[in-house]
Amino acid sequence: MKHNSKPVKVGSSIVGGSAFTIWAGPCSVESLSQFRETASQVKKLGATGLRGGLFKLRTDPTAFQGLGREAFEIVKTVKSEVGLPFVSEITDPREIGDMLDVVDAFQVGSRNMHNYALLKELAGVDKPILLKRGFSATFKEWMLAADYLIKGGNDQIILCERGIRTFETATRNTFDINAIAMAKLETPFPVLADPSHGTGQARLVPAVALAAAAAGADGLLIEVHPDPAHALSDGYQSLDFPTFAKLMGQMPKLLHALDRDMAAL
Amino acid sequence: MKHNSKPVKVGSSIVGGSAFTIWAGPCSVESLSQFRETASQVKKLGATGLRGGLFKLRTDPTAFQGLGREAFEIVKTVKSEVGLPFVSEITDPREIGDMLDVVDAFQVGSRNMHNYALLKELAGVDKPILLKRGFSATFKEWMLAADYLIKGGNDQIILCERGIRTFETATRNTFDINAIAMAKLETPFPVLADPSHGTGQARLVPAVALAAAAAGADGLLIEVHPDPAHALSDGYQSLDFPTFAKLMGQMPKLLHALDRDMAAL
Amino acid sequence: MKHNSKPVKVGSSIVGGSAFTIWAGPCSVESLSQFRETASQVKKLGATGLRGGLFKLRTDPTAFQGLGREAFEIVKTVKSEVGLPFVSEITDPREIGDMLDVVDAFQVGSRNMHNYALLKELAGVDKPILLKRGFSATFKEWMLAADYLIKGGNDQIILCERGIRTFETATRNTFDINAIAMAKLETPFPVLADPSHGTGQARLVPAVALAAAAAGADGLLIEVHPDPAHALSDGYQSLDFPTFAKLMGQMPKLLHALDRDMAAL
Amino acid sequence: MKHNSKPVKVGSSIVGGSAFTIWAGPCSVESLSQFRETASQVKKLGATGLRGGLFKLRTDPTAFQGLGREAFEIVKTVKSEVGLPFVSEITDPREIGDMLDVVDAFQVGSRNMHNYALLKELAGVDKPILLKRGFSATFKEWMLAADYLIKGGNDQIILCERGIRTFETATRNTFDINAIAMAKLETPFPVLADPSHGTGQARLVPAVALAAAAAGADGLLIEVHPDPAHALSDGYQSLDFPTFAKLMGQMPKLLHALDRDMAAL
Repeated sequence: MKHNSKPVKVGSSIVGGSAFTIWAGPCSVESLSQFRETASQVKKLGATGLRGGLFKLRTDPTAFQGLGREAFEIVKTVKSEVGLPFVSEITDPREIGDMLDVVDAFQVGSRNMHNYALLKELAGVDKPILLKRGFSATFKEWMLAADYLIKGGNDQIILCERGIRTFETATRNTFDINAIAMAKLETPFPVLADPSHGTGQARLVPAVALAAAAAGADGLLIEVHPDPAHALSDGYQSLDFPTFAKLMGQMPKLLHALDRDMAAL
Repeated sequence: MKHNSKPVKVGSSIVGGSAFTIWAGPCSVESLSQFRETASQVKKLGATGLRGGLFKLRTDPTAFQGLGREAFEIVKTVKSEVGLPFVSEITDPREIGDMLDVVDAFQVGSRNMHNYALLKELAGVDKPILLKRGFSATFKEWMLAADYLIKGGNDQIILCERGIRTFETATRNTFDINAIAMAKLETPFPVLADPSHGTGQARLVPAVALAAAAAGADGLLIEVHPDPAHALSDGYQSLDFPTFAKLMGQMPKLLHALDRDMAAL
Repeated sequence: MKHNSKPVKVGSSIVGGSAFTIWAGPCSVESLSQFRETASQVKKLGATGLRGGLFKLRTDPTAFQGLGREAFEIVKTVKSEVGLPFVSEITDPREIGDMLDVVDAFQVGSRNMHNYALLKELAGVDKPILLKRGFSATFKEWMLAADYLIKGGNDQIILCERGIRTFETATRNTFDINAIAMAKLETPFPVLADPSHGTGQARLVPAVALAAAAAGADGLLIEVHPDPAHALSDGYQSLDFPTFAKLMGQMPKLLHALDRDMAAL
Repeated sequence: MKHNSKPVKVGSSIVGGSAFTIWAGPCSVESLSQFRETASQVKKLGATGLRGGLFKLRTDPTAFQGLGREAFEIVKTVKSEVGLPFVSEITDPREIGDMLDVVDAFQVGSRNMHNYALLKELAGVDKPILLKRGFSATFKEWMLAADYLIKGGNDQIILCERGIRTFETATRNTFDINAIAMAKLETPFPVLADPSHGTGQARLVPAVALAAAAAGADGLLIEVHPDPAHALSDGYQSLDFPTFAKLMGQMPKLLHALDRDMAAL
């Protein structure tokens, strides 16, 4: 397994290269106190980047859709306090301008991997793109989505496997561990694993997070919440602080056995 | 099987109600002569609406992406010559304004069914929306996508089943005939079948088109091309004129057996 | 669509050729009165063959497993009374000898399509084989399962599409209408449709049955029960007599529109 | 992750408990020299059990079907020489008697997980059963298949995840790493991973093998061949000796980081 993917600079952090990075945070930014508490905790435990939804794509139009622009100031405040870069999903090409000074990388979510109008627009932006695999995209289609970015001029790409849709209903998605191994062999890009969406169950997240690291992933994108039972979205798959802390205790030992290290700030 | 879906007016044509409508045309509008020839032929053979791609969503960024705005005048010319309404796919919320005087209905393609930013924008438009099912969307998710339009103020919805992604590789997609029957039972909206994408093989299109009618569909969205072997996109699943003519000869007999009629202009 | 598949003689009935045949009966043979009543009703309504489970393959070991050998006399009695041939599933190569004088054709069920030990044994039997497609078998694998029979010496094969497993959970299976059309083009064998398993919902069965006929199927294998709500297995997908009667009233008109007829005894 | 699954004794080896076991060998036993060489090599490198196909279930009836009974003496000879237990697939209930003194555990292959006639017969056998998950079986169906064995009197069960069938065609199967984690949480049985079938590509096997260990699996069932390019079956997914040796060098370090050890003889 090579651990020499092309490093991508996201704000003050590096994704790729030889180290393993943890991007953690809530599914949605819900309030200043919720995001501040989460950000400071995950940083203390070793995360080198923050995640958090602003504009949420929800299947049900009556579900919580994210705070949107209201959360911009929250994010800026917390980022400057904790000193970590921030990635968030972009769902509309018209939001790019406004989000430019909030995010350090744009996330293309699973439902938008095939949104080529959005990809073409992001190809012209001078920020890294975290490209999630579509939940029903073949490996090849995922690579072709990356080609949209590359051909448009943006090769600061971070891939993210987050599980695919199969006949299995016991888990929200089927995390495709094969795709992690294949992406490491066939592309120069760093590959993150999202075990939160990949399983849809907090109790399975640590095992699959460790598995992804063992398969060669360059890091995690993982949902952590101060109080998962009362999260406004995806609480069932978010880790609470003690569980995240335990995982962050195991990870360095596992990486060491694989001749890797956790990224430091 | 009820044949009393809520009629939706698309330009001068009606979709839904008791009659069965055929929307036909090329995958992509390629040139004035190609679109003119196709439009006049399919009208002569009984189609009451035209389809044709302007902005194509292609998985491969090097594939033909449609003529885009260059085709607007072609479409306007042909529409006025043959006197049929026109539906085409919208792939970017910023194109709505420009397309308003070209299309009589906006098509939300399979890859964009989960593009809620686009759905929210289309909910404010005073044109019917042809809502294709996402190729990996559950029936329930399809209905929730329709809810985005309804809650936003647009209930001029036409559903379109176009096949789903399964393990089967012998066909491009698996046409979900069950979904046709279920949509007729559970929604008030007209339901079209797209046997072209649903099979991905011209030789299978007529059989599946007849099947969809027998299952209760309100019409077809079907790819027809003067010379499928030289089409710029999707030629393998486009019917040539003789094959389309044969299908259009069989359809009224089948519909009559089901106590239905073909729509007339 | 060709309607000239190789006719296969099943007892006193023919499957294939130009006519369309209906094989109907309960999921499981439950009692003499239940099977007698069902058999006489479906015959009166136009069925030319009987179906009924003896040895049931149930996913849950605590579910009703069929009457097994106890039902042999019931079946023989009813067959002679109503004068229709009978098909039933074989689940164990060691049951072949005992079932030889009870069934007129052996059904290989969906879960056993890949049971090559069973196929090899059935290849040496002088009875037709109704080969259901595995619920996750590709079209090609289905054809290769037929090859096991042919190479072993038995080409009295009737294919049966019964739905495949996909991500869709709104229906029990996704009935693969494309596979009906493809089997008609690529094989010489008669092709039956099983809309009962293909949908898993009685309310969807008639529409999908008509669709299968329109796509070119040579007949139906369909579950009918005197009292579906109290059936010992699969009641939710069984038609009651009035619904079956209505379907049998529509079918001849549909077939006539397709230049076909219902099979007569 | 608990590592306290119920230990199952297979010949002279233990599967389950706290240690991690490697079962290795060729897809098919091809000859005395091939099996002897493989067996002695994998033992030297740390395997504590042998695998090898005798009766092969092949989708294509013209493909190599295994040596069958001819291989019995080969296996007995090699087992006594190297002193390792042996597991092989049983495909027909009538073979049980003959295989009893050849195998130390019966493997139920993926295509037979739904073969309840076979499961019922194996429930009465006093040997452990290695129960592979059906390639399209839900987690729940897998557990119900185990129930067939338990209710029939045999609770010496070893589960084995070997990949599921999905829309993804870049790999032979999609290895379901979630199912490893879930099986460890929900059952008392040892869980093996088969990364050979789970990926279908030798180049991906080591990464997925390590991942399975990190997710909590109790061991591997892995295909190793002296000369994969000339194997009579499945060579593309078999490891050669140097690649297997490298994996066996990494595994103890990884296990140690997880507070586990490799099983010793």
